[in-house]
Amino acid sequence: MKLSELAQRIGARLRGDSSLDIESCATLDSAQPGQVAFVANRKYVRRIAGSGASAIIVSPKDAAELKADETVSLLIADDPYFAFREAVVALHGWREQPAPGVSRLAYIDDTAVVHELCTIRPFAYIAPRATIGRRCIIYPNCYVGKGVTLGDDCVLYPGVTIYDNCKLGDRVVLHAGCVIGADGYGYATHAKPGEEARHHKIPQAGIVEIEDDVEIGANAAVDRAALGVTRVGKGTKIDNLVTVGHGAGIGKHNLLVAHVGIAGSTTTGDYVTLGGQVGVAGHLHIGDGAQVAAQSGVTHDLAGGEQYGGAPAIPMRQARRTFIAQAKMPEMLTELRSLRRRIDEIEKKLDDG
Amino acid sequence: MKLSELAQRIGARLRGDSSLDIESCATLDSAQPGQVAFVANRKYVRRIAGSGASAIIVSPKDAAELKADETVSLLIADDPYFAFREAVVALHGWREQPAPGVSRLAYIDDTAVVHELCTIRPFAYIAPRATIGRRCIIYPNCYVGKGVTLGDDCVLYPGVTIYDNCKLGDRVVLHAGCVIGADGYGYATHAKPGEEARHHKIPQAGIVEIEDDVEIGANAAVDRAALGVTRVGKGTKIDNLVTVGHGAGIGKHNLLVAHVGIAGSTTTGDYVTLGGQVGVAGHLHIGDGAQVAAQSGVTHDLAGGEQYGGAPAIPMRQARRTFIAQAKMPEMLTELRSLRRRIDEIEKKLDDG
Amino acid sequence: MKLSELAQRIGARLRGDSSLDIESCATLDSAQPGQVAFVANRKYVRRIAGSGASAIIVSPKDAAELKADETVSLLIADDPYFAFREAVVALHGWREQPAPGVSRLAYIDDTAVVHELCTIRPFAYIAPRATIGRRCIIYPNCYVGKGVTLGDDCVLYPGVTIYDNCKLGDRVVLHAGCVIGADGYGYATHAKPGEEARHHKIPQAGIVEIEDDVEIGANAAVDRAALGVTRVGKGTKIDNLVTVGHGAGIGKHNLLVAHVGIAGSTTTGDYVTLGGQVGVAGHLHIGDGAQVAAQSGVTHDLAGGEQYGGAPAIPMRQARRTFIAQAKMPEMLTELRSLRRRIDEIEKKLDDG
Repeated sequence: MKLSELAQRIGARLRGDSSLDIESCATLDSAQPGQVAFVANRKYVRRIAGSGASAIIVSPKDAAELKADETVSLLIADDPYFAFREAVVALHGWREQPAPGVSRLAYIDDTAVVHELCTIRPFAYIAPRATIGRRCIIYPNCYVGKGVTLGDDCVLYPGVTIYDNCKLGDRVVLHAGCVIGADGYGYATHAKPGEEARHHKIPQAGIVEIEDDVEIGANAAVDRAALGVTRVGKGTKIDNLVTVGHGAGIGKHNLLVAHVGIAGSTTTGDYVTLGGQVGVAGHLHIGDGAQVAAQSGVTHDLAGGEQYGGAPAIPMRQARRTFIAQAKMPEMLTELRSLRRRIDEIEKKLDDG
Repeated sequence: MKLSELAQRIGARLRGDSSLDIESCATLDSAQPGQVAFVANRKYVRRIAGSGASAIIVSPKDAAELKADETVSLLIADDPYFAFREAVVALHGWREQPAPGVSRLAYIDDTAVVHELCTIRPFAYIAPRATIGRRCIIYPNCYVGKGVTLGDDCVLYPGVTIYDNCKLGDRVVLHAGCVIGADGYGYATHAKPGEEARHHKIPQAGIVEIEDDVEIGANAAVDRAALGVTRVGKGTKIDNLVTVGHGAGIGKHNLLVAHVGIAGSTTTGDYVTLGGQVGVAGHLHIGDGAQVAAQSGVTHDLAGGEQYGGAPAIPMRQARRTFIAQAKMPEMLTELRSLRRRIDEIEKKLDDG
Repeated sequence: MKLSELAQRIGARLRGDSSLDIESCATLDSAQPGQVAFVANRKYVRRIAGSGASAIIVSPKDAAELKADETVSLLIADDPYFAFREAVVALHGWREQPAPGVSRLAYIDDTAVVHELCTIRPFAYIAPRATIGRRCIIYPNCYVGKGVTLGDDCVLYPGVTIYDNCKLGDRVVLHAGCVIGADGYGYATHAKPGEEARHHKIPQAGIVEIEDDVEIGANAAVDRAALGVTRVGKGTKIDNLVTVGHGAGIGKHNLLVAHVGIAGSTTTGDYVTLGGQVGVAGHLHIGDGAQVAAQSGVTHDLAGGEQYGGAPAIPMRQARRTFIAQAKMPEMLTELRSLRRRIDEIEKKLDDG
């Protein structure tokens, strides 16, 4: 693709050689001639000189600071990272999916409804009264339970399981091994007369609803509600090996990074980000736009629009001061002993005096 | 169901309108007319007035404090949470399971023994010499390995894998993607003459035994022992994405919450609770009834009957004091500096004097 | 097996009764007559007297300290743990794998290449242009995607998914539920004109390459690179439920223990060990031979050849001092108050004086 065409496709202004051939995208450091890279962070601007890329996507501000006689062509975009994303779409495209059609090696119950242009591969299982929307792609070894509803253009990668009656919106993507709607972890511990105490299972009679444009990573699990609905809001992206507990309500456009665990009945606002391995206790609320650093433990409600860190999670500014003080603890201990000795001395001196 | 019938079914004493129709269960805050809710914690008693529920399950003590002229009917039970569980069973019931029968799309080895009234769904695989007890339900894409034994009334949800020779008791429930008996993480790091050091795999020749009434969540993994048995005791409930290492011995009626990791050869007593994301090192013992708070790291044996928190885990009372002190660390640092300055002053004064 | 033969098989020197029959291996504490155990750690030497084992593998140094008239026979080896591993191999052997042959219940695309002596079990799916090397074993419900390449002697346990174009070397073992090459967690957050901000998916156009002799545990996930390759180096062993992010490069002979999460673009040297539940942020490097204690959080580059602990991870010696100081924090707080009071007193005295 000519650089001029790429510029047009990604909505960038071109400064440089419009006739260059661009074949693919790369990171700034690994890029070779014929490749386009990007700089979204000011501190990488200086590395542009050493990059082998034919073209680099930069912000107008960074472009203004780069000399016109640079050997590299620039694609100038207000949001360089998004423009780079557009370049990856233009040059690499999306995964080539299998052609529409229902395999005769799949099992589809007679009462299931499969809408037009779906792809259903061998060893996929569609249970009674399930409904599969238009152009859905269901890979091998998937299980779509009784009464489950999929909207249009969903993709279930291999080995996905969706338990009975759960609902998916449009364009939902579930990666391999993802489990939607397994029973929530709900037990009433009770000793019946003459018996030892046992954890009596509470029927998990609710469902999971996953709204439009949600993507969920490999081997993640979203449990069904005991009563009502566990919800994952529109546009939310969930990474590998995340668990969402029963009755939780995840807002729109959240980012839940790998190994996050959210306990039952907790809700989040919109645009919430939870870093990797964050744990959130049950029955809490995290406000719109809150960002929680990796490995934090959330034990109480968090107000929106703020960054948090630590376990228990506290505002990031405070958490950072705690981290710094923590590193100084051993010397604080030493200092404390030294001060005590000095005070002992002084008191002795005063007593003697 | 009439409220009077519900009261009888759940073993509660009724105070109010016995002719009310109750259709379903709900939480206190979301309940509508026709629904029953519960209050198990004193601090929620005040919310009863605002609830739309037709009936509420309460303890005798809470009932005594509520005025007789309340508009809501009361179901009085010694253990309100367990009574509510009984109401969910009565009103919502359990998942409707597929009818007994062996699908002709399942693979069942000729030497496998499948007892009466089992349900084996398409694309399930039963290996040689496996034994499946009465009324077991095996969903699609499950794998039951060579010589595996299942007791009666087990349920394997889709995509469960059980490796060779593992044993399940009666009424064991494994949720989707659960893996039982994969090889433990055992290697001997050794450099053979003239070679670089390698991690030489140790054959994992043991098995996993899962006792009666155990339930294990989605995508959890219990590894087989190197030698002997990895055991999960009767009545224990394991949440999603938990790992139990090779040779571990989990006691009876434990609760292991999501993302818990237990390293090899560790044992737990009965009624142990490990909160979400707790990690336990290998070759340890955790005593009966110990409760470990979420995200704790257990690095030494823990005595039973006690609550623990922190990493390394310490008794909860102590851990709480540490958390409090931790929050005060930045100001401790400031205070320490201030004291040093004051002592400098005093010493100077005394020297001058 | 006669003890003399076992000694020869494992390369140990025998001191004791060469005619003893040895049937199996056991731990020191559980061993019975007819079993062999080992002592690799000096502190367990004293337990040899109480062991029921017929023979025990020990180091030359420990052997020298044990009296010749002990009732137990000794197998003397320079690396007792590796010698024990050899004994487990000799006496217990490896899992009996299914016989070679392609099941007629498997799906193998016409354009896939399956080399000689492979085992492909029912409900396994081999996509177009996949290549399966010699003597590979593919269990039920596995998915091998388009253009995937497996070397020789690989084993895919049930329910493994390998996405399109990923490459495995020789002798790679993937345990049940393992997912290789799912899309990395890559989004560009951007608000198009007139729209709300959305997380726009970046095509994950790269692959995963897994080198020779890698073993990966149950339900682990290694994501494909956005561009280029996510690599797992030769001989590395990955435990259950680990995630490796897109574009990461894991070195050779690493050990990644259960629940470890490694974010995108991070690289590790050779012989790196990450303990259970360790989290590593993106775009970092961990040097050769670094060892990171369980539950640590790595937030910056770590130099090789060193032990680390804590979150953020710091050198272990320092981390241990911090742990100790942490335990003393509540008393530090008390001490600080006491010192302040004493200084108040002194100052008052001096002012009065």
